[in-house]
Amino acid sequence: MPYSPQLLLALDLIGTFAFALNGALTAVRAVRVDLVGVLTLGVVTAIGGGILRDVLIGSVPPATFVDLRYLGVATAGALVAFFLSAQLERMTLAIVVFDAVGLSVFCVTGATKALEFGLGGVQAALLGAVTAVGGGTLRDVLIRRVPAVLVSDLYAVPALIGAALAVVAVRTGLAPLPGVPVAAVVCFGIRMAGVVFALNVPSAPGRRRDEGDEPGSGGSA
Amino acid sequence: MPYSPQLLLALDLIGTFAFALNGALTAVRAVRVDLVGVLTLGVVTAIGGGILRDVLIGSVPPATFVDLRYLGVATAGALVAFFLSAQLERMTLAIVVFDAVGLSVFCVTGATKALEFGLGGVQAALLGAVTAVGGGTLRDVLIRRVPAVLVSDLYAVPALIGAALAVVAVRTGLAPLPGVPVAAVVCFGIRMAGVVFALNVPSAPGRRRDEGDEPGSGGSA
Amino acid sequence: MPYSPQLLLALDLIGTFAFALNGALTAVRAVRVDLVGVLTLGVVTAIGGGILRDVLIGSVPPATFVDLRYLGVATAGALVAFFLSAQLERMTLAIVVFDAVGLSVFCVTGATKALEFGLGGVQAALLGAVTAVGGGTLRDVLIRRVPAVLVSDLYAVPALIGAALAVVAVRTGLAPLPGVPVAAVVCFGIRMAGVVFALNVPSAPGRRRDEGDEPGSGGSA
Repeated sequence: MPYSPQLLLALDLIGTFAFALNGALTAVRAVRVDLVGVLTLGVVTAIGGGILRDVLIGSVPPATFVDLRYLGVATAGALVAFFLSAQLERMTLAIVVFDAVGLSVFCVTGATKALEFGLGGVQAALLGAVTAVGGGTLRDVLIRRVPAVLVSDLYAVPALIGAALAVVAVRTGLAPLPGVPVAAVVCFGIRMAGVVFALNVPSAPGRRRDEGDEPGSGGSA
Repeated sequence: MPYSPQLLLALDLIGTFAFALNGALTAVRAVRVDLVGVLTLGVVTAIGGGILRDVLIGSVPPATFVDLRYLGVATAGALVAFFLSAQLERMTLAIVVFDAVGLSVFCVTGATKALEFGLGGVQAALLGAVTAVGGGTLRDVLIRRVPAVLVSDLYAVPALIGAALAVVAVRTGLAPLPGVPVAAVVCFGIRMAGVVFALNVPSAPGRRRDEGDEPGSGGSA
Repeated sequence: MPYSPQLLLALDLIGTFAFALNGALTAVRAVRVDLVGVLTLGVVTAIGGGILRDVLIGSVPPATFVDLRYLGVATAGALVAFFLSAQLERMTLAIVVFDAVGLSVFCVTGATKALEFGLGGVQAALLGAVTAVGGGTLRDVLIRRVPAVLVSDLYAVPALIGAALAVVAVRTGLAPLPGVPVAAVVCFGIRMAGVVFALNVPSAPGRRRDEGDEPGSGGSA
């Protein structure tokens, strides 16, 4: 059982919950939307990346649609965010941490699933990153924010590194243990280091980068 | 012939025309676009939801591409809107009604097609709602409006109810008659009641919802 | 070998490089994004249209993912734009020409591939146009510009004409030579004529079209 479906499923559901919570909180803060809007944005954030991945590798209907546990967990996360938004919305760090958890988990599970479907290593690493940033990007487009992946300190880079490590782990037989959790932890560490130390990716020569929206920090639309 | 292709096709073409008209009128009012832009937005509104559904269930190329009647009807609707925009643009109620017709038809046909492709009941109901709101959401993203599904009084909810009723009708053998038309009529009734009485879905506790863009009312981008 | 994979591949890679350069330059000018953002937008512009086409015809994983030459060429184009942006950004004409090259190539290769997958002539012409304008449209949505296809002088029209000519060339046995290059050149000629002479598609009766964003001219987001 080289890919350990149980471990990947557990990680995937953790990431789904974290992204749903983050996406719904971002929605509540960034635009004034009703319950349907919050649920929609939470669920889109949570399962959008996985849907993009599954459509691109031809695994349709996407797992997040066929397996109701994803939809259930995503809905639960969004509902928690909706009803506790007043309590949660000042917890900026918590939102960023939830986002980093989802990012770390999805880059690893996305890359692993892409390998299962026969993609090459480079392509699998890229698809892992797409899985990780796809849901948040869809959410940002829907609420008219510039997507975090374009402007944020070290957002796509840790996802790409985590996905690449997952590919290496599978190829070298270190997956699922210890390779997959290590890859996720490395992604999480780089992402959080980027947040804490405000590390930047270089901008084009002769330009100064504007302040980017921090993902999950609720910049206005 | 449990799904009655003829009835579903007829409903689908009615919805396609209504959505094309609505999408093109919204385009003319919301942004100043040329003939190509109006046609593009009308057609995207009309067939975008069906394309999303077909990609997600793996029915590619999408029916709206393979069967030229969809493209023909969508183009006709957009052309009518383009040439009669001066006459039509003050008819706000007509635009909202066209939108509600498309919503009602597509939630039902979308859910029914998803069932045909073997999806479960919950998933089929969700895909019916995606079919119904997908085209308008794509249009709103292209013209930089916050999608109606996120902010409008009772927009996604009637689509979800109509789709769920269609699933029940198919599962209990009441489809295509009388179940499918009844499901569409219920969706239409709830949507129009929402418009007429300005019914709202609750917002997050402690928050006041902003005025949402009414779908089809042409809020500026 | 009726479709001449070599010729189509060569054209496709030229278009990919041109679109990546154009997309990355647009990104640098329109929004202040970092290296990751510029690479992302360059690559999305370059391969987004082909991915849309491949998903719609069911050719997944998309060729641009499976064949690393596309990703390599797209990345190279985006890197050139990133490091030479200060030099290139005053070259407005060059950017427009790069964009027209990508447009001309992709409408032809997109239509040809759609025919290969069994689509009818009208559908193949439309998919050719989608291939040509899809990447730029995704880029514009991500950086919150109204997509060029909706507002620009003769942008979608030459793509549709080029794609239709490619369909005719394949159907009449004039492809790949001389039909396919001729179709691309005709598209390029119409597009550049539109730019040079500021030709417009008519707007809705009684309306004056606003100044549209010129694709690649870097209107602010």
